[in-house]
Amino acid sequence: MRPRIVIVGAGFGGMAAVKALKRADADVTLIDRTNHHLFQPLLYQVATAALSPADIATASRVLLRRHANATVVMADVVSVDAEARYVRLADGRTINYDFLVLATGAAYSFFGHGEWANHAKVLKSLEDALSIRETLLAAFERAEQCNDPDEVRRLLTFVVVGGGPTGVELAGTIAELARTTLARDFRHIDPASARIILCEAGNHILGAFPGDLPDYAARALRSLGVEVRLGEAVSLVDAEGIVLADERIAAETVLWCAGTQARPAADWLEAEAARNGAIKVAADCSVPGRPGVFAIGDVASFDGGSGKPLPGLAPVAKQQGRYVGRLLAARIAGRAPPPPFRYRDLGTMAVIGRSRAVADFGSFQLKGFLAWLAWSMVHLMLLVDFRSRMMVYVNWSWAWFTYGRGARLLTGRGELPQRSQATEISSKDFG
Amino acid sequence: MRPRIVIVGAGFGGMAAVKALKRADADVTLIDRTNHHLFQPLLYQVATAALSPADIATASRVLLRRHANATVVMADVVSVDAEARYVRLADGRTINYDFLVLATGAAYSFFGHGEWANHAKVLKSLEDALSIRETLLAAFERAEQCNDPDEVRRLLTFVVVGGGPTGVELAGTIAELARTTLARDFRHIDPASARIILCEAGNHILGAFPGDLPDYAARALRSLGVEVRLGEAVSLVDAEGIVLADERIAAETVLWCAGTQARPAADWLEAEAARNGAIKVAADCSVPGRPGVFAIGDVASFDGGSGKPLPGLAPVAKQQGRYVGRLLAARIAGRAPPPPFRYRDLGTMAVIGRSRAVADFGSFQLKGFLAWLAWSMVHLMLLVDFRSRMMVYVNWSWAWFTYGRGARLLTGRGELPQRSQATEISSKDFG
Repeated sequence: MRPRIVIVGAGFGGMAAVKALKRADADVTLIDRTNHHLFQPLLYQVATAALSPADIATASRVLLRRHANATVVMADVVSVDAEARYVRLADGRTINYDFLVLATGAAYSFFGHGEWANHAKVLKSLEDALSIRETLLAAFERAEQCNDPDEVRRLLTFVVVGGGPTGVELAGTIAELARTTLARDFRHIDPASARIILCEAGNHILGAFPGDLPDYAARALRSLGVEVRLGEAVSLVDAEGIVLADERIAAETVLWCAGTQARPAADWLEAEAARNGAIKVAADCSVPGRPGVFAIGDVASFDGGSGKPLPGLAPVAKQQGRYVGRLLAARIAGRAPPPPFRYRDLGTMAVIGRSRAVADFGSFQLKGFLAWLAWSMVHLMLLVDFRSRMMVYVNWSWAWFTYGRGARLLTGRGELPQRSQATEISSKDFG
Repeated sequence: MRPRIVIVGAGFGGMAAVKALKRADADVTLIDRTNHHLFQPLLYQVATAALSPADIATASRVLLRRHANATVVMADVVSVDAEARYVRLADGRTINYDFLVLATGAAYSFFGHGEWANHAKVLKSLEDALSIRETLLAAFERAEQCNDPDEVRRLLTFVVVGGGPTGVELAGTIAELARTTLARDFRHIDPASARIILCEAGNHILGAFPGDLPDYAARALRSLGVEVRLGEAVSLVDAEGIVLADERIAAETVLWCAGTQARPAADWLEAEAARNGAIKVAADCSVPGRPGVFAIGDVASFDGGSGKPLPGLAPVAKQQGRYVGRLLAARIAGRAPPPPFRYRDLGTMAVIGRSRAVADFGSFQLKGFLAWLAWSMVHLMLLVDFRSRMMVYVNWSWAWFTYGRGARLLTGRGELPQRSQATEISSKDFG
C-alpha cells in the first residue's frame, strides 16, 4: 500500500509540503477549514477595501490540479490519535495516516484577556478582513448620520494595538483611507479629522527591524497622521474603547495585532510546547516522541540555533513545508534524508502607506520609496497564480493614481452594524 | 429655502434621478440600505464565482462625489407620510421632503408560497449572490466527501426555476462551471456529471424574445448540458428538492428566478397598485393623488400604451429616473415641464454561457457568437465607472482563455453549510 500522508492546513507551510510531494509515490491528503490558499501578507488590503478576497485567495483544488497524488478535503480537524495514527474531523469521520504534517498556523492572543475579543477585531482570515472592512466603513457612515460631537469623535477614532508589521500596515492604510480616499465623500463630517492611534507596549514599532528603520517607520506613520504611542500598555478593551496606560480613549474600532498564539495542535498530540503554544520540533521538524508526525510554520517552535525560535513568518513556513515534503519523499523512495532544516533568511519588509516601506536584507537596509518598490515587486511575484498577480497589479495601479479603493462595500443586512443602546445614534433632523 | 428632494433606492432609477438633478437648485438626499450602486445585470456572474462583488458595485458616495447638492444616507426606509411629507427610517428618524422619488425596485415572489423561500435562493443583492456562490461550491465539496451515491446525485442536482434572462444565464453558467471549470479538480466525483435543470412553466424560455430566439436559446442551453423543462409548473419546494408537475426531483440547490413582486412602497402610500404590487403611475411617473411623489423602475407600473405595463428592465428604470430628475429640475427652475415619459426601447439581450447570446434590437435580431460579442461590449460600456470596466474586462479575458473562475471562495465558518440530520453526510473512510 502507498504511504498515506495527511497535511493539515493549506497555508504557506502546508501548500509547500504538498507541492514538494508532487512526484512522491504516496497518497497525500490536504485538509483545511476553507477551500482556498490565502496570501496573508496582503490581507490588510482586503480589510481596508483596496483588494477583493478573490484577488489574494485561490481555491486549493486549482493550485493542486496537476498533483495527481493529492486529495483536498474541506473539513475541520478536532483531534489527533498519534498512537492509532488518525486525525478526527468535526463531523466524526477519521482519516488515517502514516505521516502527519501539522501546519495549522497561529491565531491572535489577548494575553489572558479573552473577553477583549468581544470588542477588538483580529486579522487572520478572509472573514476577519471583511468584518474589519465593514466596521471601518460603517463607522464613517454612522458618524455622517450622527449629530452628537462626542459620539462622532468616538466613531472616528481607530485604535490599532501592536506595532508589528500588520499593525503598522493597518494604521498607515486606515490613515490614508480617511485622509485621501474618503476625504471628499461626506457632507456632515470631515473624514480627514479621524484619529488613528497605533499603540505599542515596547519602545519601538517594528522592533524586529535593525538600525534606524523603526524610527523611520514611526516618523513615516506620523507624517500620515497616525498617533504612534510607544511604551504604554493597553490595560483594558471594552465596548467604549480602550484604556492605554491610565488614559481612557473612546473608540468605536479596536484592531488587535499584538501577540499570537499557535493553534491547539500541541494539545492534540500532548506534545511539548513553547510559551506561545507552538510545538517544539526537532532539527528535521519532526515532533519528538510522536513517530511520523511533523509540525511546520507558526504552529512549530523551531530552535533557530541561538536558543531563539524562528519567527512566525511566511518564508519560514514555506521553507519548512518544502523541507518536510522533500524529507518524506526521500524517505518513501528509500533515499538518504536531507540534512537538518536550516532557515535561509531572505529579508523582511513592512509597508507604510502607499509609497513607503522598510526592508531589511541582512547585509543592507532600504527605506522609503525604493523599499516600497521592492516590497511591491516581491509581493506581486510571490502571489501564487497569474490571475491574482494580474488582479492585484490592476487594482494597485488604479488605486495609486486615483487614491481610490475599489472594494468600499457595505451590504447592509437591513441596517448598519448597531452598538448597544448606551451608544445609540442620536436622531438627526435632515429636514 | 431650497426644495428638498428625497430619492429612495440607489439602483438604476434612483441613481439616474440624482444625476439628472446635478445642477438643480435643491437639496437631494439619496437613501439606500446599502452603501453602493449595484450593476444587477452581471450579478449572476458573482453568484457563479466569475466576478467579485467589488467588480460590479461602486460606493454611491464615489459616484456622487461631484454632485454638491446630493447627500447619501445609508438607512432603511420603513414608511412614508404623504400628508406631512416625510419618510421614516428604521431607527425612528424622519427625513422631510418636498418631492419624493420612490425607486425601491422589486423582490422575487413565490406565488403565495412564502415557505419555499426557506429552500430556494433568489438573486437580487450582493449577499444573495455570495450565498448562492457558497451553496454551489459547497455542494461539490460535500459530494466529494460523500459515499452514498443517491446523496451525491442529490448534491449535484441544481434546479433553476424560471426561464427568463436570469434563469437562463444562471443555468448556462452553472453547467459550464460543472463541465469545464471544476471538471478536473475532484478525485472522488465527476463534476461534469452534475444535473442542471431549468424549469419554465410556459412553453418557451425567454418568452419576451421574438421569432426563433427562444428556440435557439433552448437548443444552446441543451448543448451545454442543461435539461430544459417547459410547460410544467413547480408545485412544491422543500428541503429535499422540488416537485415538478408530478415528478419529485431531489436537489440540494434550488434557485428561484420566477415571478417578481414590487417592494412595498405602494403600501407606504396606500396607493393604487398593479397585481405585482407596483404603484400605478401617471404619464409623468407621478403617483396620482399623492402630490410631489413619483415612482420609477420596478416599483412603478407604467402603462406602456397598449394597456401592457412597461417591463421590469434596467433601461426602463434608468430612463424614468432621468426623466423625473429633469422634470423636477424644470419645475424647480420654473421652466416648462417635459412632455409625458416615453420609453425608448434600445433592445434586450440574454447571454447563454461563455460564447452565445440572443439579442433583440426591434428591427433585427442576433444570436450566437455575434450576439455574445454585442452583449459583452454593451455590458462593459454600461458599467458605471472605469475601474469596474477594467476589472470585469480583465476577469473576463482571463476566464475566457482559461475556463477558470477567479472567485471560487468558501470561507468555511468552521464547517461546510450543513443540512438537517435526515441528509447527513455519510462517513467515508479516507484511509
